[in-house]
Amino acid sequence: MTFVSFTTDYGLADGFVAACHGVILRAVPTARIIDVTHLVPPGDVRRAAAVLAQTVGSLPRGVHLAVVDPGVGTVRRAVAVRAAGGDLVGPDNGLLIAAAERLGGVQAAVTLPVPAAAPATFHGRDVFAPAAAELARGTELTALGAPLDPATLVRLPAPHARLRSDGVLEAEVLLVDTFGNVQLAAAGPLLADAGLRPPGRALVWAATPGAGPSPGPSPGAGRSRGGEQSLDAAGGIELAVGVTFGSVAPGELVLYVDAAGMGAIAVRDGDAARTLAVAPADRLALRRAGAGA
Amino acid sequence: MTFVSFTTDYGLADGFVAACHGVILRAVPTARIIDVTHLVPPGDVRRAAAVLAQTVGSLPRGVHLAVVDPGVGTVRRAVAVRAAGGDLVGPDNGLLIAAAERLGGVQAAVTLPVPAAAPATFHGRDVFAPAAAELARGTELTALGAPLDPATLVRLPAPHARLRSDGVLEAEVLLVDTFGNVQLAAAGPLLADAGLRPPGRALVWAATPGAGPSPGPSPGAGRSRGGEQSLDAAGGIELAVGVTFGSVAPGELVLYVDAAGMGAIAVRDGDAARTLAVAPADRLALRRAGAGA
Amino acid sequence: MTFVSFTTDYGLADGFVAACHGVILRAVPTARIIDVTHLVPPGDVRRAAAVLAQTVGSLPRGVHLAVVDPGVGTVRRAVAVRAAGGDLVGPDNGLLIAAAERLGGVQAAVTLPVPAAAPATFHGRDVFAPAAAELARGTELTALGAPLDPATLVRLPAPHARLRSDGVLEAEVLLVDTFGNVQLAAAGPLLADAGLRPPGRALVWAATPGAGPSPGPSPGAGRSRGGEQSLDAAGGIELAVGVTFGSVAPGELVLYVDAAGMGAIAVRDGDAARTLAVAPADRLALRRAGAGA
Repeated sequence: MTFVSFTTDYGLADGFVAACHGVILRAVPTARIIDVTHLVPPGDVRRAAAVLAQTVGSLPRGVHLAVVDPGVGTVRRAVAVRAAGGDLVGPDNGLLIAAAERLGGVQAAVTLPVPAAAPATFHGRDVFAPAAAELARGTELTALGAPLDPATLVRLPAPHARLRSDGVLEAEVLLVDTFGNVQLAAAGPLLADAGLRPPGRALVWAATPGAGPSPGPSPGAGRSRGGEQSLDAAGGIELAVGVTFGSVAPGELVLYVDAAGMGAIAVRDGDAARTLAVAPADRLALRRAGAGA
Repeated sequence: MTFVSFTTDYGLADGFVAACHGVILRAVPTARIIDVTHLVPPGDVRRAAAVLAQTVGSLPRGVHLAVVDPGVGTVRRAVAVRAAGGDLVGPDNGLLIAAAERLGGVQAAVTLPVPAAAPATFHGRDVFAPAAAELARGTELTALGAPLDPATLVRLPAPHARLRSDGVLEAEVLLVDTFGNVQLAAAGPLLADAGLRPPGRALVWAATPGAGPSPGPSPGAGRSRGGEQSLDAAGGIELAVGVTFGSVAPGELVLYVDAAGMGAIAVRDGDAARTLAVAPADRLALRRAGAGA
Repeated sequence: MTFVSFTTDYGLADGFVAACHGVILRAVPTARIIDVTHLVPPGDVRRAAAVLAQTVGSLPRGVHLAVVDPGVGTVRRAVAVRAAGGDLVGPDNGLLIAAAERLGGVQAAVTLPVPAAAPATFHGRDVFAPAAAELARGTELTALGAPLDPATLVRLPAPHARLRSDGVLEAEVLLVDTFGNVQLAAAGPLLADAGLRPPGRALVWAATPGAGPSPGPSPGAGRSRGGEQSLDAAGGIELAVGVTFGSVAPGELVLYVDAAGMGAIAVRDGDAARTLAVAPADRLALRRAGAGA
């Protein structure tokens, strides 16, 4: 039984996902393919990397094929990577690294050859799926291509997350999910270091001018005036620090540690991203309510 | 060969569905998972229950995992239910009942324990999928949790469907499908009792003021003025009673018994929900054309 | 190991796809189903036929079930078709033909009986999936229904593609994919015959008044004034002829032969269909830049 997970930005309206399934199953008819998602926004390597990294720990050991590849047909390398907990195949654009780290870190990597005769636009079908199938059938990683130094693999910039000396936690929005829950780049322990532990209260505001929360309905809440310097008792939006949505009444905001272990903001039975008017890569600032100012 | 069906409101853009697949397949690598749908609108237990109930009869015997769970992290129970025709796992919010009834009715049920250490927001991965996997591998239902009295399981209110003494059939819109077909909460025999048998003609109008059909292009058709009392020969929209879309010309409305055995209204090659401006939970009234007034 | 591919316009929000999976798996529990797409726009037989035809060559040998069936419940036939490379099942509306040709051409075909008791609206579940399951379990095609003359199978009109005597290539837009790439009905060799070989330059304009490209940012480019007759050095939009997206800078248009072997226009890291304001069935005209006028 060999498992192959599959993550792309191919969408579900074309036959691209099925073509790759077909390539794998023609080579290894007993393979079992688990589709992680194919609805990554076109070319959004950052989102795909985060979704795969947060999912891979729940998947059976196997090969993880991921293709979000705006550079297809350019000089970017095609790679296969071995981690302690599984193999990964995809473009060398940072997509695979966070997942590889969840699987124990990159142990070895090879550059996949691109057949000269292959069309230059569908490496998922013509380069990556065949390599994943080879690994699924037990071919050695080193038989797939020339070894490369893992240190040369392209990495995405680390998302911003910082506990300032004044006790304020700054964190980039990493993901917004289907429910509008806003996941921060700050892991649970960093929240705890900032004093953001349940049960409690917090203030959240935009760490960068022009981004972030609009004024909330809380008494005394107002839009942060001009960025982090202007934070005062009246600025930002106050919200509960809880353990889950159920910690607050319907319609209310709650800061919690989500199922991926990251700090997150939700609205119970609502959409926090819409409520706060935030999107991935926006920077938020948070502090314990009443702790400063 | 063990089959697990899977129904959620998780969407397809995150890794949530795959994480649950992974949990099941790590525990039972030979399990086969059939995705019913993951595009239930967030928290729409009513729609999920109806879709699952209308699908389950076509599925192989197995475990039916369903997670539409706006109450995750509150006091609602997590349950596993045994019916004559299969097992069901999900939150105790009414989601599973209609499907269980299609499978012969609830025979036994247990409350699933929620691990104290589990994150409080992803019970699909951390509570329900593991329970479904246990059932898929043959573990006894009673080994999964404390027995509960099936009479205490939460049930959704029955959707409105009533044949009035004046021969008018009132029925709530139960589902609107991808094609815009409007499924009523009234089953085929109730339509027949109302004299709505093919071939024939019917009138449909909004049973509640403010909801329902807008005036149609039929000569003499007009919006029902103020609810059911005002129905007269000029009110409502007239449509054919047929056996299928092909019973009418393209663009025309037809009332028929659909593939789930329920009364439904379609526009051939069109979208009846848009044509009639109706949505789930709207109440419609129907009568045989020429039979009253 | 038996593979069944599955293509529909059922969408993913209802239980229709799962019901068909269930019917197949109840009959043949070991079958493996590959979903090609279920997001064909409702009733768009032309798109479904093209997507299936371009995918089927990557799939394992098996049965190809396709149901885009605006004529369900009318007199259109239900058919099963045998090609050298596999079997196909679906409505007799042209949907299966292009895929059958990719699989070596139609060798035999039968009309599937429609059970009198079956609902008239869900032949996917009640007619086509059961037939696909029969073929998947090895039943002879001829056992499924009455033989029919393959010459009587309904065919879609061939999409327009023509190399004019003046060297201009006219081609209909066949598909627009998730990325906005515009696939033409003209295969690679026809592009080459028109002198559209990389590296080079081309002009593209609307072959029919009212359809097609809006003026681009290229110096000297302008909208074709009144159709093909008015093409001159200043008309149309100039673009590169390359081998892939990487042949041009981000944001630029490129004409290339895509992974299905068809001429296509893309915008690197962009959406060509939006840039050119074209949709399937629009007719474009192309010529080598500097070759005429």
